[in-house]
Amino acid sequence: MKKIIILTLVSAFVFIACNQSGQQKQPEVNKRDIVLSNIHSRKSVRNFVEGKTIPKEDLETLLKAGMAAPSAVNLQPWHFVVIDNRADLDSLSTKLPYAKMLTKASAAIIVCGDSAIKAGDMAFWEFDCSLVSANILLAAEAMGLGAVWTAVHPDPSRIEFVKQHLQLPDNIIPLNVIPIGYPTGEDKSKDKFKAERIHYNKW
Amino acid sequence: MKKIIILTLVSAFVFIACNQSGQQKQPEVNKRDIVLSNIHSRKSVRNFVEGKTIPKEDLETLLKAGMAAPSAVNLQPWHFVVIDNRADLDSLSTKLPYAKMLTKASAAIIVCGDSAIKAGDMAFWEFDCSLVSANILLAAEAMGLGAVWTAVHPDPSRIEFVKQHLQLPDNIIPLNVIPIGYPTGEDKSKDKFKAERIHYNKW
Repeated sequence: MKKIIILTLVSAFVFIACNQSGQQKQPEVNKRDIVLSNIHSRKSVRNFVEGKTIPKEDLETLLKAGMAAPSAVNLQPWHFVVIDNRADLDSLSTKLPYAKMLTKASAAIIVCGDSAIKAGDMAFWEFDCSLVSANILLAAEAMGLGAVWTAVHPDPSRIEFVKQHLQLPDNIIPLNVIPIGYPTGEDKSKDKFKAERIHYNKW
Repeated sequence: MKKIIILTLVSAFVFIACNQSGQQKQPEVNKRDIVLSNIHSRKSVRNFVEGKTIPKEDLETLLKAGMAAPSAVNLQPWHFVVIDNRADLDSLSTKLPYAKMLTKASAAIIVCGDSAIKAGDMAFWEFDCSLVSANILLAAEAMGLGAVWTAVHPDPSRIEFVKQHLQLPDNIIPLNVIPIGYPTGEDKSKDKFKAERIHYNKW
């Protein structure tokens, strides 16, 4: 009887003790560190694992992240063309010298701006669509996908080729083509911090 | 002696058992969900708690996040002017109609582009500096700070005023002024998702 009481007390003591240490061991979810490390680990991914399909829900998650971007006077002057078939990915690559990796990408998002939408006499679609693209690139990194901004605008011949290929209305300008896929791991992020680029209060 | 052995065995058993349950209890850090929710919770913050100072390390964390942005041909055509004193924040607000909240902000970052840096005959600083600004706005949200892009470029009179105020070289163009501070909580994020902006393979 006495032995059972001692056993029970010891067990209880050990249980409480190691449960508290267990709580201390639990990692704290740190939004700040996770978001900052995602920003720093994002890289331009140009090498993709071939033959893998990105679920449509994941492509829509990227577009939802894109549409969460700020825009001048909240005009949201953006449209998206998603390329999710091999033939169009390959044919787009033929006349886009910096988008050859489309032939290995699983999909692509073309971020387009509506040049007819203006705030007063100023158009902000180039900035707004750049912010949209930043969200897409950062979301892709967080989702284990790889992506890279390949420029279309302001190159007239690339704009014309993409507009014709996608049958875009005159006022819709393709800013970039963002090939998306599963990274092979060859592409690495760069440390681009330069203290000399920072000025305080005056140049 | 026998009792000690039993006690030791029981203690060891209970310790191992509850340690395993402890490990199961640890929450899984979910990078994808945290980064996406930060993108969706980011808002343009125009209302700041007055009289609070942002630690210099936090301003530098924002700038490091900014410099992690991609840039065309990795040219990194960006510079930053940090405004961290009341007098300059207030005087900048006088001629920037959409940046009146500078008078309540704790600091500001002015993202500038070097218009002399080109890839071939094309300048990409407007896009590159927009991507930099996106990183700063998203990092601020993750750090519990509030920020908002207030446009300078392409408005000629605002560009001229800011260039003179900061004594910027001719080739350095201020893209925006980003007031930064501690949010009062009045500003909320918006759901801007519009399915009709998404097109598949053709317009």
